[in-house]
Amino acid sequence: MNVILSATLAANEDIVRRRRAGLRVLNLAFGEAGLPVHPALRNRLSEASGNNGYGEVAGSAALRESAAGYWGRRGLPTDPDLVVSGPGSKPLLFGLLLALGGDVVLPMPSWVSYAAQAEIVGVRAILLPPPPGEGGVPDPDLLAPAVSEARSRGRDVRSVLVTLPDNPTGRLARPETVRRLAVLARELDLIIISDEIYRDLVHDPSAVFASPAEFAPERTVITTGLSKSLALGGWRTGSARLPGAALRDRLLALASEIWSTPPAPVQHAAAYAFAEPAELVRRVADSRRLHGIMARAVAERFIRAGACVEPPQGGFYLYPEISSFSSSTELATELIEKHGVAVLPGTAFGDRPRVSRIRVATSLLYGESAEQRLAALHADDPVRLPWIDASLRHLDEALEGLGRCGGGRSGGGMPSEKPAATRR
Amino acid sequence: MNVILSATLAANEDIVRRRRAGLRVLNLAFGEAGLPVHPALRNRLSEASGNNGYGEVAGSAALRESAAGYWGRRGLPTDPDLVVSGPGSKPLLFGLLLALGGDVVLPMPSWVSYAAQAEIVGVRAILLPPPPGEGGVPDPDLLAPAVSEARSRGRDVRSVLVTLPDNPTGRLARPETVRRLAVLARELDLIIISDEIYRDLVHDPSAVFASPAEFAPERTVITTGLSKSLALGGWRTGSARLPGAALRDRLLALASEIWSTPPAPVQHAAAYAFAEPAELVRRVADSRRLHGIMARAVAERFIRAGACVEPPQGGFYLYPEISSFSSSTELATELIEKHGVAVLPGTAFGDRPRVSRIRVATSLLYGESAEQRLAALHADDPVRLPWIDASLRHLDEALEGLGRCGGGRSGGGMPSEKPAATRR
Repeated sequence: MNVILSATLAANEDIVRRRRAGLRVLNLAFGEAGLPVHPALRNRLSEASGNNGYGEVAGSAALRESAAGYWGRRGLPTDPDLVVSGPGSKPLLFGLLLALGGDVVLPMPSWVSYAAQAEIVGVRAILLPPPPGEGGVPDPDLLAPAVSEARSRGRDVRSVLVTLPDNPTGRLARPETVRRLAVLARELDLIIISDEIYRDLVHDPSAVFASPAEFAPERTVITTGLSKSLALGGWRTGSARLPGAALRDRLLALASEIWSTPPAPVQHAAAYAFAEPAELVRRVADSRRLHGIMARAVAERFIRAGACVEPPQGGFYLYPEISSFSSSTELATELIEKHGVAVLPGTAFGDRPRVSRIRVATSLLYGESAEQRLAALHADDPVRLPWIDASLRHLDEALEGLGRCGGGRSGGGMPSEKPAATRR
Repeated sequence: MNVILSATLAANEDIVRRRRAGLRVLNLAFGEAGLPVHPALRNRLSEASGNNGYGEVAGSAALRESAAGYWGRRGLPTDPDLVVSGPGSKPLLFGLLLALGGDVVLPMPSWVSYAAQAEIVGVRAILLPPPPGEGGVPDPDLLAPAVSEARSRGRDVRSVLVTLPDNPTGRLARPETVRRLAVLARELDLIIISDEIYRDLVHDPSAVFASPAEFAPERTVITTGLSKSLALGGWRTGSARLPGAALRDRLLALASEIWSTPPAPVQHAAAYAFAEPAELVRRVADSRRLHGIMARAVAERFIRAGACVEPPQGGFYLYPEISSFSSSTELATELIEKHGVAVLPGTAFGDRPRVSRIRVATSLLYGESAEQRLAALHADDPVRLPWIDASLRHLDEALEGLGRCGGGRSGGGMPSEKPAATRR
């Protein structure tokens, strides 16, 4: 096993070190929501500060019922007994991979921890690019051949994972793609793990969101959490919606030996959040708006500088390509070393080393203090706030002369629609 | 892999179900500290309710410095950079077994989760009884032969684990035993994992406590937490003291992919706790006194009823033997089914099935409400509090006629000092 510190967390720690050394760093590396805790959630945590019992491994009945209601309001009626909460969706995903115990098909690129967790568990990750222009879903056209091929080599492929909307690309898979993937998963007898932690941060509230649980409810696990929509990353809370009792029991058995229970005071606040009271619905809507504005503003700057960027659709990420570099690592290194701009190279997400794509997280642009971040949240035009403007200028300077999309082409814009096999 | 829900957590959930069904249950099964959160810690958690950043994987600098100070005051100077905090000591122990990646020698009996974690990790647990009359430490006389034998069969034995003081036996290994074990671990090139989560709950404050880190600092990892001494089980906080950077880096890499970081608001409170302000030192002292009084009171009742019990020395457990039963499961089943007394059979701790020993946890006798528990904490004679007296009468009734220690012998008392091989 050759596991190194999670790329995102390692980048974060590197940035802290550079800043302590007096260097100016624009942090576009870390996927933290960059917004303060809503006061109602702070109050709930304080209210529950006396909760010190271990409680149930799956989380309290109140939390599981509340999470079930959350999914129910999204067209997915949910049995609270099939909800398992944990200290973050990361440990839940780890537990699921362990419980499933077979190889997993991942989109390429995909969040840094999926493949690393597979390696820790001792199973293989099969990485497949998404359909051209999409992200977060292995291309259904490639799925059956890849699974058959792996199985013919004796591999025991048991699951496929999707991220809706996606980190790192910021793209939301089309409902038709999700449907096709779900149908194929049934044919291939694969469990679908659907990481929907960014679901409530799809920028366009009228966009059609499809979960594979709509098409293959008997085999879809959904994971979510409050780290992104309500900026509670450091609180460590996540929830999973299981398709049946057998997988739930295997997950709970592992959970009981690895992490026991989710933190009790946080459970109380999470139960409140999943009930979606008006004040938190408003907060999520405000956050979604800000994330969208800023992701688009940064994407525009990359495009202006000549990069190829698919328009971000959800979360706070974009995934530009600057093909005048020979690798994503070279590009990321140039940005941090010469320009003090921290991003993550595509390789951290399992992308091909020779494709010079980077993941740019835009959420730490909102400000350094809670006051600045709140001001950004409520600003009509957050891009004009002086501290955000200064950061964007820093970025503009860094991007100047970095090179262009598609090598010799004269301008930036959308990535060229080459076939997936050559483009990625 | 055949992992089932952690025995302690499963027992807890079974008790909840029985009570919901209207059954009277005396809960002597679950190792929860049974005391309220100290108000100072509640305040600290509330104070930190705005902390929502992920922060460092190892925990905040403040927490790591505070934990280092805690160990320093116990004669173990500690580099804060070699402290790793996590969401409980359970995930830290899991991460350590994964990071070490070889077979582990455990005491028999030992806490339910060590062997289960080893199974999840895919390594083998070698169970060795402690020296007669002790607990929590594999008998040094048996260690070298067992490790040599396993190695001769091609097994890669890399670590030995001790629990000081012990769960389930409530016994504290003698300093000379710990020293011998540490010397042998060095000769055998084993890492020592020393679970010292009950360290501050040794009943006799003048008892000599020896950590293997005193004798083999280069190879000893200490884990601890606040779940027992300050009753923060549900808050999920634990800390490890690593012997060097290599193992720390492996542990952090795994932590970053499995659980990210410990919950941020809890970190703030834990940093306060490890600094050992006077009000918390007093709280731990009061808790220790109560745990000692109650563990002894329950031990006396078992002895009166004819059981063999080694006197509990730390924590809130005892491990009686009633040899008129043919197995620990039979004994535990009779207690819950016929008498409504929940305990855990010795088999849950890896003990031999034919030895009718059970683990009795005494900390949930203090009361049902925070008020009752606080009253118990401050009572001169907690045993006389009406709700505790009622529970002890329930226990007396259950024990009446259960049988005797050592089969045909006429009275209870200390377990007979037969050689370990036949006695366990």
